[in-house]
Amino acid sequence: MSALLQKHREILDKALDACSKRYSWTAYPESPSSKIWGREKPVAGKANFEAMLGTDYHLAQPGEVGRTGLEISPYTGEPLGISYPKMDVDLLYQAIESGMPSWRNATPQTRIGVCLEILDRCAGQLFENAHATMHTSGQSYIMAFAGSGANALDRGLEALAYAHKAMSDVPETAKWERQFGKSGSARLHKTYRIMPRGVGVVVCCATFPLWNGYPAMCASLATGNPVVLKPHPAAILPVALLTKVAREVLREAGFDPNLVSMVADTREEPATMALLEHPMTAIIDFTGSPAFGRWIEQNCSGKQVYTETAGCNSVVVESCQELTAMAAAIAHSLCQASAQMCTSVQNIHIPADGIVAGTEHVSFDEVAAAIVQGVEKYLQNPQVLCGTLVDDTILATIERYRGLASQHGRLLRDSAPIHYPDFPRARTASPMILEVTQTAREIYRDEIFGPVSFIIKGESIDECLRDATTNARECGAITSHVYSTDEEFLDRAEAAYNNAGASVACNLLGMPINFAAAYSDYHVTGLNPAGNACLTDLAFVASRFRIVQSKRM
Amino acid sequence: MSALLQKHREILDKALDACSKRYSWTAYPESPSSKIWGREKPVAGKANFEAMLGTDYHLAQPGEVGRTGLEISPYTGEPLGISYPKMDVDLLYQAIESGMPSWRNATPQTRIGVCLEILDRCAGQLFENAHATMHTSGQSYIMAFAGSGANALDRGLEALAYAHKAMSDVPETAKWERQFGKSGSARLHKTYRIMPRGVGVVVCCATFPLWNGYPAMCASLATGNPVVLKPHPAAILPVALLTKVAREVLREAGFDPNLVSMVADTREEPATMALLEHPMTAIIDFTGSPAFGRWIEQNCSGKQVYTETAGCNSVVVESCQELTAMAAAIAHSLCQASAQMCTSVQNIHIPADGIVAGTEHVSFDEVAAAIVQGVEKYLQNPQVLCGTLVDDTILATIERYRGLASQHGRLLRDSAPIHYPDFPRARTASPMILEVTQTAREIYRDEIFGPVSFIIKGESIDECLRDATTNARECGAITSHVYSTDEEFLDRAEAAYNNAGASVACNLLGMPINFAAAYSDYHVTGLNPAGNACLTDLAFVASRFRIVQSKRM
Repeated sequence: MSALLQKHREILDKALDACSKRYSWTAYPESPSSKIWGREKPVAGKANFEAMLGTDYHLAQPGEVGRTGLEISPYTGEPLGISYPKMDVDLLYQAIESGMPSWRNATPQTRIGVCLEILDRCAGQLFENAHATMHTSGQSYIMAFAGSGANALDRGLEALAYAHKAMSDVPETAKWERQFGKSGSARLHKTYRIMPRGVGVVVCCATFPLWNGYPAMCASLATGNPVVLKPHPAAILPVALLTKVAREVLREAGFDPNLVSMVADTREEPATMALLEHPMTAIIDFTGSPAFGRWIEQNCSGKQVYTETAGCNSVVVESCQELTAMAAAIAHSLCQASAQMCTSVQNIHIPADGIVAGTEHVSFDEVAAAIVQGVEKYLQNPQVLCGTLVDDTILATIERYRGLASQHGRLLRDSAPIHYPDFPRARTASPMILEVTQTAREIYRDEIFGPVSFIIKGESIDECLRDATTNARECGAITSHVYSTDEEFLDRAEAAYNNAGASVACNLLGMPINFAAAYSDYHVTGLNPAGNACLTDLAFVASRFRIVQSKRM
Repeated sequence: MSALLQKHREILDKALDACSKRYSWTAYPESPSSKIWGREKPVAGKANFEAMLGTDYHLAQPGEVGRTGLEISPYTGEPLGISYPKMDVDLLYQAIESGMPSWRNATPQTRIGVCLEILDRCAGQLFENAHATMHTSGQSYIMAFAGSGANALDRGLEALAYAHKAMSDVPETAKWERQFGKSGSARLHKTYRIMPRGVGVVVCCATFPLWNGYPAMCASLATGNPVVLKPHPAAILPVALLTKVAREVLREAGFDPNLVSMVADTREEPATMALLEHPMTAIIDFTGSPAFGRWIEQNCSGKQVYTETAGCNSVVVESCQELTAMAAAIAHSLCQASAQMCTSVQNIHIPADGIVAGTEHVSFDEVAAAIVQGVEKYLQNPQVLCGTLVDDTILATIERYRGLASQHGRLLRDSAPIHYPDFPRARTASPMILEVTQTAREIYRDEIFGPVSFIIKGESIDECLRDATTNARECGAITSHVYSTDEEFLDRAEAAYNNAGASVACNLLGMPINFAAAYSDYHVTGLNPAGNACLTDLAFVASRFRIVQSKRM
């Protein structure tokens, strides 16, 4: 067994067990509390981040032909001033190619060991990553530590567990012996080899740079493929931190560091297409907009494509035990990360004649008001939950829906800047909530990126469910929620969502309903337009490698 | 456990064990000998086949709008006179759709049980299938019983074992419990459901109608997808026999028989495109020509595509223990099924300065002559091995290469009709062998369907290996062979083929070298142009279904 695998064997075994039983487990604590980490690590992490500002970030990648990068902190409005290598893709790929044979010839165990060590070292820089994520993606500190940090590392380990499982299914050798007719007979010794497909390009998104970064890198790298990370131009630093660690670990383990590299760019001079279209690129992992994801799915034939994009996630409210608790759960989703998560709720379907909450009938307006009230409550301490907006275009989006509101329904809650004392120039927006009927379908069936949501008055609960599940099927959904005290309705709603190709959560309360648990929640079904790949199932890893064999008599 | 799974549990468990250890095993005896089957079964099988001639084959499929089919026996030159349902694809798909929910909602165990029963009943009509295959694909009786019969059934069972493995990886339920911060906590009950993708279309080839028919059907059907079988217009009857059994078993098990259906056609009125392009078609399994296979790979984005086509399979001869035995092994491949197999050898690379055989030096010409001599020997009893030609176009191909021979090299052995006393009008051709040098690359780098092969004089053994592996990478290869007594050379050749994305067999003697063993040989690597899918690995099954979940607090 490889030394690195031996070092991390226990954690891999735990991940394998968690994946198979799907209970709650984490390898990486998601809280940045000094009770867990001590007092020095958080302080050092922040200092390390600050020391990087205004400097050149070096990766020593062959084919560097200049510097690039223009990240602006959504908290300060100031450029980070960090430059990254600007790459000549062909020169880089030539260098990658020469590193491939030794990696391909390494055992799966060795490669898994290297990946485990990469994840372990990334866990050692979660504070650096948190500040980097905050000042690029605009997440709150807590979220940046967890969502694109510890939780994403768990997804990476999970993908590694599946890669291990899929590769372990292929034996290394076999003896095979049989008669052919009266005279013929054969005794063969067979050898089976895992073969990579080629370069895996990982296109990371702006809001959660490493959510697919860790799992996609682990899945491709462990199965023998070199990986090129392509950060979003707005969020390069978190990806650079991973790239540096990966290259370091590869070098120390005796492999070519170019097996993991990064190609950064700016909005003005994008580099993504050159990577996607390169003939050596065999695998593409993409997180980002539905439009670009769909384009890749349709136009990159001959390459393995794994996408996670977004949909118009819904809630169907049929009834509940306790109105305030349910409203708080929904409001949490509208506030968290300013609804820039792939799991954020957008469409809240409530029947026109209201619902039963506990033992009382509550009108549609009362339910809507309770949700707005829930939002107001979270806004009393917004910095922890809402963070900032990753992008100026979200302000334009909000403006646009403000204009549409009176035409299509009414504004239940307007969006406004949120004030953060520490960051007076932060780009922020509180949730905007529109009340509409199903006549406004055309506006709420779009995936809206940012804090705009709809409370949709349905003619009946059946109509609510029908509309929500139709939209899941046709427009995509990553999460869907149902609130009901009626077991029969829950069964029906589960079946309706599942048959629409969507997963569903029932009566989630007292927890962040956006939360997707590694090792337990299959994230993205692949059956609706919100993406074609799942974190993590066997299908996510099994096609990243092929098998060649040799047999000798 | 489902009753049908219980009935066949032992055979499934044996297949699972064989797949994981990859030793020699078969669930279906490949010999038609009456010592195994008794005297009645072979006779009854032949009689059943003959009773079908000149009749209407009924499948009771909704959407039948007429009759179609025009199969001509390559043995007799006469039409079989069997008509099959001509289908309105849209009407058929409507009927399929209504059968989907109950199949989707059945447990994986139930579906696996149904598939096992289908295979078992098909094993009961192997003699019917053998005669049907003979008089459509033109195979010899022995081959028709084994290759597209018993061996193909093994591939079906193998695919089923993998489908079982992949689905078993997904637990049915889980309990999940954790704290969120100080106040929040959650206890969730989670349910995971296997969801099919949609209709699986299986395009079968003319020469081995069920080689991919059984495995593709099993892989798609077991994972919840309805299957539409599309036979080649020249070889419908074997596929019809499977379709009828599958529909019967489904009906008896309480499911909609339309979950397996057949759309036959003629060359004049092809039906394939309507199936490939139908929006409900989500999965395509294709065996056939490289050109159509490539078209499907490139143009059916959004559908899961699994192809097996063909390449220009090679032999590299460096040295051998015993010339006659080696020559016989190679000659067997040139004769078997008139080289119409995807595993037939086409390009035989021999160094110009000859080889060492045993302790003696043997010239290039002597090696070539030994191979020709090997062919002559098999031709003493050709009917068992060579069979007939599936298609008139093969005669034209032979004619064409006869014309090219003098221009590019010389004819070492000309092709001629083979005489079968029982079938005086059989369409046959003995192997044509051309001697060429590497200057004739453009003619031997095509995949030639039928009994045309090349003995290629290489400047050196390294040049032979380089040429053969380059062609494997660029033009495709399903099997590759090396003969050498030098362990160092074998290691080098194995690495060269493997790195070219090709599997390789070394020094195979005394057995049919075309043979690919279910449960042991990974058939088709997917790394070269000869196909993108493998019989069978996890990748063949893992993406045929998706997972949806529901969680309740």
